Amino acid sequence: MPTSITRIVIPVYRDFDILDVSGPFAMFNTVRDTAGISPVLATDQPGLVTCLQGIEFNVALALPALAFSDAIWVPGGFGQGYFDQFSSSGPLVNWLKTEGPNAGYVCSVCTGALLLAAGGLLAGYTATTHWQFQQALGMFPGVRLASGYPRYWIDRNRITGGGVSSGLDASLATIAVLSNSTNAMYAQLLNQYAPRPPFDAGTPVTAPPEILGSFLRIFGPGTTQVEKVVAAFLQNQGAG
Amino acid sequence: MPTSITRIVIPVYRDFDILDVSGPFAMFNTVRDTAGISPVLATDQPGLVTCLQGIEFNVALALPALAFSDAIWVPGGFGQGYFDQFSSSGPLVNWLKTEGPNAGYVCSVCTGALLLAAGGLLAGYTATTHWQFQQALGMFPGVRLASGYPRYWIDRNRITGGGVSSGLDASLATIAVLSNSTNAMYAQLLNQYAPRPPFDAGTPVTAPPEILGSFLRIFGPGTTQVEKVVAAFLQNQGAG
Repeated sequence: MPTSITRIVIPVYRDFDILDVSGPFAMFNTVRDTAGISPVLATDQPGLVTCLQGIEFNVALALPALAFSDAIWVPGGFGQGYFDQFSSSGPLVNWLKTEGPNAGYVCSVCTGALLLAAGGLLAGYTATTHWQFQQALGMFPGVRLASGYPRYWIDRNRITGGGVSSGLDASLATIAVLSNSTNAMYAQLLNQYAPRPPFDAGTPVTAPPEILGSFLRIFGPGTTQVEKVVAAFLQNQGAG
Repeated sequence: MPTSITRIVIPVYRDFDILDVSGPFAMFNTVRDTAGISPVLATDQPGLVTCLQGIEFNVALALPALAFSDAIWVPGGFGQGYFDQFSSSGPLVNWLKTEGPNAGYVCSVCTGALLLAAGGLLAGYTATTHWQFQQALGMFPGVRLASGYPRYWIDRNRITGGGVSSGLDASLATIAVLSNSTNAMYAQLLNQYAPRPPFDAGTPVTAPPEILGSFLRIFGPGTTQVEKVVAAFLQNQGAG
Protein backbone atom coordinates (compact mmCIF):
# COMPACT_ATOMS: atom_id res chain seq x y z
CA MET A 1 0.00 0.00 0.00
CA PRO A 2 1.21 3.52 -0.74
CA THR A 3 2.46 5.66 2.10
CA SER A 4 1.23 8.92 0.62
CA ILE A 5 -1.35 10.22 -1.84
CA THR A 6 -0.40 12.06 -4.99
CA ARG A 7 -3.42 13.94 -6.20
CA ILE A 8 -3.42 14.66 -9.93
CA VAL A 9 -5.61 17.68 -10.60
CA ILE A 10 -7.11 17.62 -14.10
CA PRO A 11 -8.63 21.02 -14.88
CA VAL A 12 -11.45 20.87 -17.41
CA TYR A 13 -13.14 23.64 -19.36
CA ARG A 14 -15.73 23.87 -22.10
CA ASP A 15 -14.56 22.08 -25.29
CA PHE A 16 -11.89 19.96 -23.61
CA ASP A 17 -11.17 16.77 -25.56
CA ILE A 18 -12.86 13.76 -23.98
CA LEU A 19 -10.03 11.33 -24.72
CA ASP A 20 -7.36 13.72 -23.38
CA VAL A 21 -9.12 13.42 -20.02
CA SER A 22 -10.63 9.94 -19.97
CA GLY A 23 -7.67 7.87 -21.14
CA PRO A 24 -5.24 9.21 -18.56
CA PHE A 25 -7.95 9.32 -15.88
CA ALA A 26 -8.59 5.60 -16.45
CA MET A 27 -4.86 4.79 -16.26
CA PHE A 28 -4.31 6.90 -13.13
CA ASN A 29 -7.43 5.58 -11.42
CA THR A 30 -6.31 1.99 -11.98
CA VAL A 31 -3.42 2.50 -9.56
CA ARG A 32 -5.34 4.59 -7.03
CA ASP A 33 -4.99 1.91 -4.37
CA THR A 34 -1.63 0.42 -5.33
CA ALA A 35 0.26 3.64 -6.04
CA GLY A 36 -1.70 6.24 -4.08
CA ILE A 37 -2.31 8.18 -7.29
CA SER A 38 -5.60 10.00 -7.10
CA PRO A 39 -6.91 11.79 -10.20
CA VAL A 40 -9.58 14.47 -9.73
CA LEU A 41 -11.40 16.70 -12.17
CA ALA A 42 -11.71 20.38 -11.25
CA THR A 43 -13.08 23.41 -13.02
CA ASP A 44 -13.55 27.15 -12.64
CA GLN A 45 -17.28 27.02 -11.95
CA PRO A 46 -18.38 23.60 -10.67
CA GLY A 47 -21.32 22.05 -12.50
CA LEU A 48 -21.84 20.61 -15.95
CA VAL A 49 -18.90 21.05 -18.32
CA THR A 50 -19.44 20.15 -21.98
CA CYS A 51 -16.54 18.55 -23.78
CA LEU A 52 -15.63 19.09 -27.43
CA GLN A 53 -17.58 15.97 -28.38
CA GLY A 54 -20.75 17.32 -26.74
CA ILE A 55 -20.92 15.07 -23.67
CA GLU A 56 -21.61 16.80 -20.35
CA PHE A 57 -19.42 15.96 -17.36
CA ASN A 58 -20.66 16.88 -13.90
CA VAL A 59 -17.66 18.36 -12.12
CA ALA A 60 -18.01 19.12 -8.40
CA LEU A 61 -14.57 20.42 -7.47
CA ALA A 62 -13.45 24.04 -7.96
CA LEU A 63 -9.88 24.60 -9.10
CA PRO A 64 -8.04 24.04 -5.83
CA ALA A 65 -5.01 25.61 -4.23
CA LEU A 66 -2.19 23.12 -4.71
CA ALA A 67 0.13 21.61 -2.18
CA PHE A 68 3.60 20.70 -3.34
CA SER A 69 2.77 17.02 -3.65
CA ASP A 70 0.09 17.59 -6.26
CA ALA A 71 0.51 17.12 -9.98
CA ILE A 72 -1.40 18.97 -12.69
CA TRP A 73 -2.57 17.29 -15.89
CA VAL A 74 -3.90 19.79 -18.43
CA PRO A 75 -5.99 18.31 -21.25
CA GLY A 76 -6.17 19.79 -24.70
CA GLY A 77 -9.26 20.99 -26.46
CA PHE A 78 -10.40 22.86 -29.51
CA GLY A 79 -13.21 25.19 -30.54
CA GLN A 80 -14.46 28.39 -28.92
CA GLY A 81 -14.37 27.09 -25.33
CA TYR A 82 -10.69 26.33 -25.78
CA PHE A 83 -9.85 29.59 -27.55
CA ASP A 84 -11.59 31.54 -24.78
CA GLN A 85 -9.06 30.24 -22.27
CA PHE A 86 -6.48 32.52 -23.88
CA SER A 87 -8.43 35.72 -23.20
CA SER A 88 -6.97 38.05 -20.60
CA SER A 89 -9.62 36.97 -18.09
CA GLY A 90 -9.25 33.23 -18.73
CA PRO A 91 -9.52 31.68 -15.25
CA LEU A 92 -7.60 28.51 -16.14
CA VAL A 93 -4.51 30.33 -17.39
CA ASN A 94 -4.59 32.57 -14.34
CA TRP A 95 -4.88 29.50 -12.11
CA LEU A 96 -1.93 27.90 -13.91
CA LYS A 97 0.14 31.08 -13.40
CA THR A 98 -0.63 31.12 -9.68
CA GLU A 99 -0.72 27.45 -8.77
CA GLY A 100 1.47 25.83 -11.42
CA PRO A 101 4.71 26.76 -9.65
CA ASN A 102 3.39 24.98 -6.51
CA ALA A 103 2.73 21.70 -8.30
CA GLY A 104 5.17 18.83 -8.00
CA TYR A 105 4.66 17.86 -11.64
CA VAL A 106 3.19 19.89 -14.46
CA CYS A 107 1.81 17.77 -17.29
CA SER A 108 -0.30 18.16 -20.40
CA VAL A 109 -1.55 16.31 -23.41
CA CYS A 110 -2.33 17.63 -26.88
CA THR A 111 -3.18 21.35 -27.03
CA GLY A 112 -3.06 21.45 -23.23
CA ALA A 113 0.62 22.31 -23.72
CA LEU A 114 -0.37 25.71 -25.13
CA LEU A 115 -2.30 26.42 -21.93
CA LEU A 116 0.74 25.48 -19.84
CA ALA A 117 2.83 27.81 -22.02
CA ALA A 118 0.28 30.61 -21.61
CA GLY A 119 0.56 30.09 -17.86
CA GLY A 120 4.29 30.67 -18.13
CA LEU A 121 5.08 27.08 -17.18
CA LEU A 122 7.07 25.95 -20.22
CA ALA A 123 9.57 28.79 -20.67
CA GLY A 124 13.02 27.21 -20.57
CA TYR A 125 11.64 23.72 -21.12
CA THR A 126 11.49 21.28 -24.02
CA ALA A 127 7.94 20.15 -24.74
CA THR A 128 5.62 18.60 -27.28
CA THR A 129 1.98 18.83 -28.35
CA HIS A 130 -0.36 17.55 -31.08
CA TRP A 131 1.62 17.31 -34.35
CA GLN A 132 -0.61 19.90 -35.98
CA PHE A 133 -0.03 22.53 -33.28
CA GLN A 134 3.70 22.36 -32.72
CA GLN A 135 4.20 25.61 -34.62
CA ALA A 136 1.69 27.36 -32.36
CA LEU A 137 3.46 26.03 -29.26
CA GLY A 138 6.77 27.25 -30.64
CA MET A 139 5.40 30.82 -30.74
CA PHE A 140 5.72 31.07 -26.94
CA PRO A 141 9.08 32.60 -25.98
CA GLY A 142 11.50 30.17 -24.36
CA VAL A 143 9.63 26.97 -25.31
CA ARG A 144 11.84 24.44 -27.11
CA LEU A 145 9.99 21.92 -29.28
CA ALA A 146 10.94 18.25 -29.00
CA SER A 147 11.82 17.01 -32.49
CA GLY A 148 9.58 14.60 -34.39
CA TYR A 149 6.22 13.50 -33.05
CA PRO A 150 7.00 11.94 -29.67
CA ARG A 151 4.23 10.39 -27.59
CA TYR A 152 5.50 12.46 -24.66
CA TRP A 153 8.50 14.42 -23.55
CA ILE A 154 9.89 14.62 -20.02
CA ASP A 155 12.03 17.62 -19.05
CA ARG A 156 12.62 17.75 -15.31
CA ASN A 157 9.13 18.03 -13.76
CA ARG A 158 7.37 18.91 -17.00
CA ILE A 159 5.73 16.03 -18.88
CA THR A 160 4.00 16.98 -22.11
CA GLY A 161 2.14 14.56 -24.37
CA GLY A 162 1.57 14.60 -28.12
CA GLY A 163 -1.89 14.67 -29.67
CA VAL A 164 -5.01 13.19 -28.03
CA SER A 165 -4.36 9.43 -27.78
CA SER A 166 -0.74 10.17 -26.76
CA GLY A 167 -2.25 10.70 -23.32
CA LEU A 168 -2.34 6.93 -22.82
CA ASP A 169 1.41 6.57 -23.30
CA ALA A 170 2.14 9.82 -21.45
CA SER A 171 0.01 8.81 -18.45
CA LEU A 172 1.80 5.47 -18.12
CA ALA A 173 5.12 7.31 -18.20
CA THR A 174 3.76 9.73 -15.59
CA ILE A 175 2.73 6.86 -13.30
CA ALA A 176 6.26 5.48 -13.58
CA VAL A 177 7.72 8.87 -12.66
CA LEU A 178 5.31 9.53 -9.79
CA SER A 179 5.59 6.00 -8.34
CA ASN A 180 7.40 3.24 -10.25
CA SER A 181 7.31 1.14 -13.41
CA THR A 182 5.62 -1.77 -11.60
CA ASN A 183 2.54 0.35 -11.06
CA ALA A 184 2.66 1.62 -14.63
CA MET A 185 2.80 -1.92 -16.01
CA TYR A 186 -0.07 -2.93 -13.73
CA ALA A 187 -2.19 -0.14 -15.24
CA GLN A 188 -1.15 -1.22 -18.72
CA LEU A 189 -2.15 -4.85 -18.09
CA LEU A 190 -5.49 -4.02 -16.49
CA ASN A 191 -6.41 -1.76 -19.39
CA GLN A 192 -5.06 -4.33 -21.89
CA TYR A 193 -3.00 -1.61 -23.50
CA ALA A 194 -1.23 -3.63 -26.18
CA PRO A 195 -2.30 -1.34 -29.02
CA ARG A 196 -2.40 -2.55 -32.60
CA PRO A 197 -4.20 -0.07 -34.83
CA PRO A 198 -5.63 -1.53 -38.03
CA PHE A 199 -3.93 1.25 -40.04
CA ASP A 200 -0.65 3.17 -39.81
CA ALA A 201 -1.94 6.68 -40.29
CA GLY A 202 -1.31 8.16 -36.84
CA THR A 203 1.28 10.78 -37.77
CA PRO A 204 1.77 13.05 -40.78
CA VAL A 205 4.81 11.01 -41.87
CA THR A 206 3.01 7.64 -41.87
CA ALA A 207 -0.43 8.74 -43.08
CA PRO A 208 -1.05 8.32 -46.82
CA PRO A 209 -0.63 11.70 -48.59
CA GLU A 210 -4.32 11.84 -49.53
CA ILE A 211 -5.35 11.43 -45.87
CA LEU A 212 -2.97 14.17 -44.76
CA GLY A 213 -4.19 16.35 -47.62
CA SER A 214 -7.82 15.92 -46.65
CA PHE A 215 -6.94 16.61 -43.00
CA LEU A 216 -5.14 19.83 -43.91
CA ARG A 217 -8.00 20.97 -46.14
CA ILE A 218 -10.46 20.53 -43.27
CA PHE A 219 -8.24 21.45 -40.31
CA GLY A 220 -5.91 23.99 -41.84
CA PRO A 221 -8.14 26.95 -40.90
CA GLY A 222 -8.24 25.56 -37.35
CA THR A 223 -4.49 25.71 -37.09
CA THR A 224 -4.49 29.25 -38.36
CA GLN A 225 -7.10 30.12 -35.76
CA VAL A 226 -5.01 28.70 -32.91
CA GLU A 227 -1.99 30.63 -34.12
CA LYS A 228 -4.08 33.83 -34.24
CA VAL A 229 -5.33 33.17 -30.71
CA VAL A 230 -1.78 32.62 -29.45
CA ALA A 231 -0.51 35.72 -31.28
CA ALA A 232 -3.26 37.83 -29.69
CA PHE A 233 -2.49 36.37 -26.27
CA LEU A 234 1.21 37.17 -26.59
CA GLN A 235 0.47 40.69 -27.82
CA ASN A 236 -1.89 41.37 -24.88
CA GLN A 237 0.68 39.98 -22.49
CA GLY A 238 3.37 42.21 -23.96
CA ALA A 239 1.06 45.20 -23.56
CA GLY A 240 0.07 44.26 -20.01
CA MET B 1 -20.16 14.52 -47.64
CA PRO B 2 -22.01 11.43 -46.47
CA THR B 3 -25.31 10.59 -48.04
CA SER B 4 -26.75 9.02 -44.89
CA ILE B 5 -26.29 9.06 -41.14
CA THR B 6 -25.26 5.97 -39.20
CA ARG B 7 -26.13 6.52 -35.59
CA ILE B 8 -24.04 4.51 -33.15
CA VAL B 9 -25.99 4.07 -29.93
CA ILE B 10 -23.72 3.65 -26.90
CA PRO B 11 -25.78 2.47 -23.92
CA VAL B 12 -24.28 3.46 -20.58
CA TYR B 13 -25.10 2.25 -17.08
CA ARG B 14 -23.69 2.76 -13.59
CA ASP B 15 -20.07 1.54 -13.39
CA PHE B 16 -19.38 1.58 -17.14
CA ASP B 17 -15.69 1.99 -17.89
CA ILE B 18 -14.88 5.56 -18.93
CA LEU B 19 -12.27 4.60 -21.53
CA ASP B 20 -14.55 1.96 -23.12
CA VAL B 21 -16.90 4.83 -23.95
CA SER B 22 -14.69 7.86 -24.43
CA GLY B 23 -12.01 6.43 -26.72
CA PRO B 24 -14.44 5.08 -29.32
CA PHE B 25 -16.73 8.12 -28.91
CA ALA B 26 -13.79 10.38 -29.75
CA MET B 27 -12.88 8.29 -32.81
CA PHE B 28 -16.45 8.08 -34.08
CA ASN B 29 -17.12 11.77 -33.45
CA THR B 30 -14.05 12.73 -35.46
CA VAL B 31 -15.71 11.46 -38.64
CA ARG B 32 -19.20 12.75 -37.84
CA ASP B 33 -19.11 15.16 -40.77
CA THR B 34 -16.96 13.21 -43.21
CA ALA B 35 -18.50 9.75 -42.73
CA GLY B 36 -21.95 10.54 -41.35
CA ILE B 37 -21.17 8.49 -38.25
CA SER B 38 -23.02 9.89 -35.27
CA PRO B 39 -22.29 8.44 -31.80
CA VAL B 40 -24.85 9.06 -29.06
CA LEU B 41 -24.98 8.04 -25.42
CA ALA B 42 -28.25 6.60 -24.14
CA THR B 43 -29.34 5.11 -20.84
CA ASP B 44 -32.31 3.51 -19.12
CA GLN B 45 -33.18 6.50 -16.97
CA PRO B 46 -31.79 9.74 -18.41
CA GLY B 47 -29.83 11.90 -15.98
CA LEU B 48 -26.47 11.57 -14.28
CA VAL B 49 -24.74 8.22 -14.79
CA THR B 50 -21.64 7.52 -12.72
CA CYS B 51 -18.88 5.57 -14.41
CA LEU B 52 -16.60 3.05 -12.72
CA GLN B 53 -13.99 5.75 -12.17
CA GLY B 54 -16.50 7.96 -10.32
CA ILE B 55 -17.07 10.65 -12.92
CA GLU B 56 -20.68 11.62 -13.59
CA PHE B 57 -21.89 11.84 -17.19
CA ASN B 58 -25.10 13.71 -17.90
CA VAL B 59 -27.01 11.53 -20.38
CA ALA B 60 -30.17 12.99 -21.91
CA LEU B 61 -31.28 10.23 -24.27
CA ALA B 62 -33.35 7.20 -23.20
CA LEU B 63 -32.48 3.87 -24.79
CA PRO B 64 -34.13 4.31 -28.20
CA ALA B 65 -35.94 1.99 -30.54
CA LEU B 66 -33.50 1.18 -33.31
CA ALA B 67 -33.88 1.48 -37.03
CA PHE B 68 -31.95 -0.96 -39.17
CA SER B 69 -29.26 1.56 -40.04
CA ASP B 70 -28.22 1.99 -36.42
CA ALA B 71 -25.24 0.33 -34.79
CA ILE B 72 -24.90 -0.54 -31.10
CA TRP B 73 -21.65 -0.15 -29.19
CA VAL B 74 -21.83 -1.71 -25.72
CA PRO B 75 -19.09 -0.64 -23.30
CA GLY B 76 -17.77 -2.84 -20.54
CA GLY B 77 -17.79 -2.11 -16.87
CA PHE B 78 -17.14 -3.67 -13.52
CA GLY B 79 -18.45 -3.42 -9.96
CA GLN B 80 -21.98 -3.63 -8.63
CA GLY B 81 -23.55 -1.41 -11.28
CA TYR B 82 -22.20 -3.77 -13.94
CA PHE B 83 -23.19 -6.94 -12.11
CA ASP B 84 -26.72 -5.60 -11.63
CA GLN B 85 -27.21 -5.60 -15.40
CA PHE B 86 -27.37 -9.39 -15.28
CA SER B 87 -30.36 -9.50 -12.92
CA SER B 88 -33.61 -10.69 -14.43
CA SER B 89 -34.95 -7.13 -14.47
CA GLY B 90 -31.81 -5.57 -15.96
CA PRO B 91 -33.17 -3.01 -18.46
CA LEU B 92 -30.08 -2.97 -20.65
CA VAL B 93 -30.08 -6.72 -21.32
CA ASN B 94 -33.81 -6.59 -22.03
CA TRP B 95 -33.23 -3.70 -24.43
CA LEU B 96 -30.46 -5.67 -26.15
CA LYS B 97 -32.78 -8.68 -26.51
CA THR B 98 -35.51 -6.55 -28.08
CA GLU B 99 -33.55 -4.03 -30.12
CA GLY B 100 -30.27 -5.85 -30.82
CA PRO B 101 -31.72 -7.86 -33.71
CA ASN B 102 -32.84 -4.59 -35.36
CA ALA B 103 -29.37 -3.04 -35.29
CA GLY B 104 -27.24 -3.03 -38.40
CA TYR B 105 -24.08 -3.72 -36.42
CA VAL B 106 -23.73 -5.05 -32.88
CA CYS B 107 -20.44 -4.13 -31.23
CA SER B 108 -18.84 -4.20 -27.80
CA VAL B 109 -15.60 -3.59 -26.01
CA CYS B 110 -14.22 -5.29 -22.91
CA THR B 111 -16.85 -6.85 -20.63
CA GLY B 112 -19.55 -5.33 -22.82
CA ALA B 113 -19.35 -8.62 -24.75
CA LEU B 114 -20.90 -10.43 -21.78
CA LEU B 115 -23.87 -8.07 -21.95
CA LEU B 116 -24.25 -8.80 -25.68
CA ALA B 117 -24.12 -12.51 -24.87
CA ALA B 118 -26.71 -12.10 -22.11
CA GLY B 119 -28.91 -10.38 -24.67
CA GLY B 120 -28.63 -13.44 -26.87
CA LEU B 121 -26.67 -11.57 -29.51
CA LEU B 122 -23.50 -13.68 -29.65
CA ALA B 123 -24.86 -17.23 -29.90
CA GLY B 124 -23.36 -18.73 -33.04
CA TYR B 125 -20.70 -16.05 -33.30
CA THR B 126 -16.98 -15.86 -32.59
CA ALA B 127 -16.16 -13.03 -30.20
CA THR B 128 -13.58 -11.62 -27.80
CA THR B 129 -13.49 -9.64 -24.55
CA HIS B 130 -10.98 -8.47 -21.91
CA TRP B 131 -8.29 -11.15 -21.54
CA GLN B 132 -9.27 -11.74 -17.92
CA PHE B 133 -12.93 -12.44 -18.72
CA GLN B 134 -12.70 -14.74 -21.71
CA GLN B 135 -13.63 -17.73 -19.57
CA ALA B 136 -16.77 -15.96 -18.34
CA LEU B 137 -17.75 -15.11 -21.94
CA GLY B 138 -17.21 -18.74 -22.92
CA MET B 139 -19.85 -19.81 -20.38
CA PHE B 140 -22.62 -18.51 -22.65
CA PRO B 141 -23.94 -21.31 -24.88
CA GLY B 142 -23.01 -20.97 -28.53
CA VAL B 143 -20.35 -18.29 -28.08
CA ARG B 144 -17.02 -19.20 -29.70
CA LEU B 145 -13.96 -17.43 -28.27
CA ALA B 146 -11.44 -15.94 -30.67
CA SER B 147 -8.04 -17.38 -29.82
CA GLY B 148 -5.32 -15.27 -28.22
CA TYR B 149 -5.91 -11.69 -27.13
CA PRO B 150 -7.04 -9.92 -30.29
CA ARG B 151 -7.76 -6.20 -30.21
CA TYR B 152 -11.09 -6.96 -31.89
CA TRP B 153 -12.86 -9.69 -33.77
CA ILE B 154 -15.26 -9.25 -36.67
CA ASP B 155 -17.78 -12.01 -37.39
CA ARG B 156 -20.40 -10.88 -39.91
CA ASN B 157 -22.13 -7.90 -38.23
CA ARG B 158 -20.73 -8.55 -34.77
CA ILE B 159 -17.60 -6.60 -33.81
CA THR B 160 -16.24 -7.31 -30.33
CA GLY B 161 -13.20 -5.64 -28.80
CA GLY B 162 -10.70 -6.88 -26.24
CA GLY B 163 -10.12 -5.16 -22.90
CA VAL B 164 -10.62 -1.42 -22.32
CA SER B 165 -8.07 0.32 -24.55
CA SER B 166 -8.82 -2.19 -27.33
CA GLY B 167 -11.79 0.06 -28.02
CA LEU B 168 -9.49 2.44 -29.88
CA ASP B 169 -8.41 -0.20 -32.38
CA ALA B 170 -11.91 -1.71 -32.53
CA SER B 171 -13.55 1.64 -33.20
CA LEU B 172 -11.19 2.39 -36.08
CA ALA B 173 -12.00 -1.02 -37.55
CA THR B 174 -15.69 -0.26 -37.05
CA ILE B 175 -15.40 3.06 -38.89
CA ALA B 176 -13.76 1.21 -41.79
CA VAL B 177 -16.62 -1.31 -41.86
CA LEU B 178 -19.39 1.28 -41.53
CA SER B 179 -17.87 3.67 -44.10
CA ASN B 180 -14.35 3.12 -45.45
CA SER B 181 -10.68 2.97 -44.51
CA THR B 182 -10.10 6.56 -45.63
CA ASN B 183 -12.38 7.81 -42.88
CA ALA B 184 -10.78 5.46 -40.35
CA MET B 185 -7.30 6.73 -41.18
CA TYR B 186 -8.54 10.30 -40.95
CA ALA B 187 -9.74 9.60 -37.40
CA GLN B 188 -6.42 7.94 -36.59
CA LEU B 189 -4.42 10.93 -37.84
CA LEU B 190 -6.56 13.54 -36.08
CA ASN B 191 -6.28 11.67 -32.78
CA GLN B 192 -2.55 11.08 -33.43
CA TYR B 193 -3.07 7.40 -32.74
CA ALA B 194 0.46 6.11 -33.32
CA PRO B 195 0.68 4.35 -29.96
CA ARG B 196 4.00 3.55 -28.38
CA PRO B 197 3.56 2.46 -24.76
CA PRO B 198 6.65 2.89 -22.58
CA PHE B 199 6.31 -0.73 -21.41
CA ASP B 200 5.22 -4.01 -22.99
CA ALA B 201 2.89 -5.28 -20.27
CA GLY B 202 -0.47 -5.04 -22.03
CA THR B 203 -1.33 -8.75 -22.17
CA PRO B 204 -0.77 -11.68 -19.80
CA VAL B 205 1.83 -13.16 -22.19
CA THR B 206 3.97 -10.01 -22.41
CA ALA B 207 3.58 -8.72 -18.84
CA PRO B 208 6.39 -9.66 -16.44
CA PRO B 209 5.29 -12.60 -14.25
CA GLU B 210 5.35 -10.49 -11.09
CA ILE B 211 2.97 -7.94 -12.65
CA LEU B 212 0.58 -10.68 -13.75
CA GLY B 213 0.84 -12.27 -10.32
CA SER B 214 0.00 -9.06 -8.50
CA PHE B 215 -2.89 -8.49 -10.91
CA LEU B 216 -4.31 -11.95 -10.27
CA ARG B 217 -3.96 -11.51 -6.50
CA ILE B 218 -5.95 -8.28 -6.62
CA PHE B 219 -8.34 -9.09 -9.48
CA GLY B 220 -8.79 -12.82 -9.12
CA PRO B 221 -11.81 -12.48 -6.83
CA GLY B 222 -13.32 -10.08 -9.35
CA THR B 223 -13.11 -12.70 -12.07
CA THR B 224 -14.73 -15.25 -9.81
CA GLN B 225 -17.48 -12.76 -9.09
CA VAL B 226 -18.19 -12.20 -12.79
CA GLU B 227 -18.33 -15.95 -13.36
CA LYS B 228 -20.77 -16.29 -10.46
CA VAL B 229 -22.94 -13.53 -11.89
CA VAL B 230 -22.94 -15.18 -15.31
CA ALA B 231 -23.71 -18.61 -13.81
CA ALA B 232 -26.66 -17.15 -11.88
CA PHE B 233 -27.90 -15.39 -15.01
CA LEU B 234 -27.75 -18.57 -17.06
CA GLN B 235 -29.48 -20.55 -14.31
CA ASN B 236 -32.31 -17.98 -14.07
CA GLN B 237 -32.66 -17.99 -17.82
CA GLY B 238 -32.88 -21.77 -17.89
CA ALA B 239 -35.55 -21.62 -15.20
CA GLY B 240 -37.52 -18.88 -16.98
